[in-house]
Amino acid sequence: MIFWKNFFQNSNINASSEKNFKKLIVLDKTCDKIEFKDIYLSSNKNINLYELEQLCDSVGWVKRPLKKVKIALKNSSIIISLIQKKDANSKLVGFARATSDNGFNATIWDVVIHPDFQGLGLGKVVIHQLIQQLRQAEISTITLFAEPDVVSFYKKLGFIKDPDGVKGMFWYPR
Amino acid sequence: MIFWKNFFQNSNINASSEKNFKKLIVLDKTCDKIEFKDIYLSSNKNINLYELEQLCDSVGWVKRPLKKVKIALKNSSIIISLIQKKDANSKLVGFARATSDNGFNATIWDVVIHPDFQGLGLGKVVIHQLIQQLRQAEISTITLFAEPDVVSFYKKLGFIKDPDGVKGMFWYPR
Ligand SMILES: CC(C)(COP(=O)(O)OP(=O)(O)OC[C@H]1O[C@@H](n2cnc3c(N)ncnc32)[C@H](O)[C@@H]1OP(=O)(O)O)[C@@H](O)C(=O)NCCC(=O)NCCS
Ligand SMILES: CC(C)(COP(=O)(O)OP(=O)(O)OC[C@H]1O[C@@H](n2cnc3c(N)ncnc32)[C@H](O)[C@@H]1OP(=O)(O)O)[C@@H](O)C(=O)NCCC(=O)NCCS
Repeated sequence: MIFWKNFFQNSNINASSEKNFKKLIVLDKTCDKIEFKDIYLSSNKNINLYELEQLCDSVGWVKRPLKKVKIALKNSSIIISLIQKKDANSKLVGFARATSDNGFNATIWDVVIHPDFQGLGLGKVVIHQLIQQLRQAEISTITLFAEPDVVSFYKKLGFIKDPDGVKGMFWYPR
Repeated sequence: MIFWKNFFQNSNINASSEKNFKKLIVLDKTCDKIEFKDIYLSSNKNINLYELEQLCDSVGWVKRPLKKVKIALKNSSIIISLIQKKDANSKLVGFARATSDNGFNATIWDVVIHPDFQGLGLGKVVIHQLIQQLRQAEISTITLFAEPDVVSFYKKLGFIKDPDGVKGMFWYPR
């Protein structure tokens, strides 16, 4: 079990291209060792679509047309990504996005952490970051639709299921 | 009990300013009488904020800052309104909007029919129109959050509650 603590530092690898990235430091719960994973947090909307496809693939999600993914990203209010940088290589290891009217409501979609990086507190970091940015934008209602197996993940992060009996509902084409 | 049938006709009142409106004809269930209510359906995003405030007031919703309402409307993908036109007067009698990433997901918010016009099938018309436009835009997931007393209204329109155990969840500031 590992808990997380994120220090946002300015990257000093490449000041010009890295200005949108913030370095993330994951601390071991015992605090005797800093697990320095070279993971960066970014709110940059310019996501490599192939890397995102690979990440979604890694958790078994069905493939989606890249053209539509591009449109969906363009029309998302906030996009959070986690990137591991090692030497000259970088790898997308976490992702989440939110749609919003930028006034009252937001909905979180496509929360994913690469299996090799799960259980390190990175899912928590991504959701915290989304919440923080939505709160800064004075969004009062932050919503999401959770698969049964991740309901308790979101509960731990303060999300409430069916508050006051409000029900999530879906319409599907027949 | 009245069911509805909507014939979309071009308005002939004022062809230039009315080009975004479609006339709505509400038919009595017995079909022996056409209840011609002079109600027009519009997808125009230019909503009079004061009229919208009055409409929301009429169903007892809390007042919201108009500045934020304006931003929320600007960032909604689809806005549907129902307007009653009588002589030189017009009145906003129905409203609904949806946020969307324009690729995969949409969420419906702020569905409201003025109490004087409830039970005529207009809520149905508004939701049908939203669904139709979202389907045209190839949105596959149409979602909403329903208060307990309107869950069966949405069920009648084909919405499914917690499909496969997927749960609507909310985060509130502490
Ligand atoms: C769900 C997911 C995003 C969690 O990310 P993660 O980085 O592994 O989660 P974290 O390490 O930040 O976990 C934070 C806390 O939630 C708990 N948790 C994580 N996944 C959980 C799950 N599926 N069920 C219950 N609790 C979970 C952790 O144990 C941890 O608890 P702690 O704070 O008491 O130690 C990740 O497992 C994932 O990408 N899954 C596949 C895709 C998916 O299902 N996404 C959600 C779509 S609705
Ligand atoms: C909910 C609301 C939009 C419904 O609009 P409406 O124009 O009265 O509804 P309609 O006449 O189109 O009704 C369509 C069908 O749903 C039924 N219905 C309407 N309101 C219902 C309700 N609250 N519960 C159960 N069924 C309802 C009607 O009886 C009708 O059934 P039928 O097709 O078998 O005849 C309207 O009552 C309203 O604005 N309420 C206040 C605001 C609100 O609660 N909005 C929803 C926020 S989540």
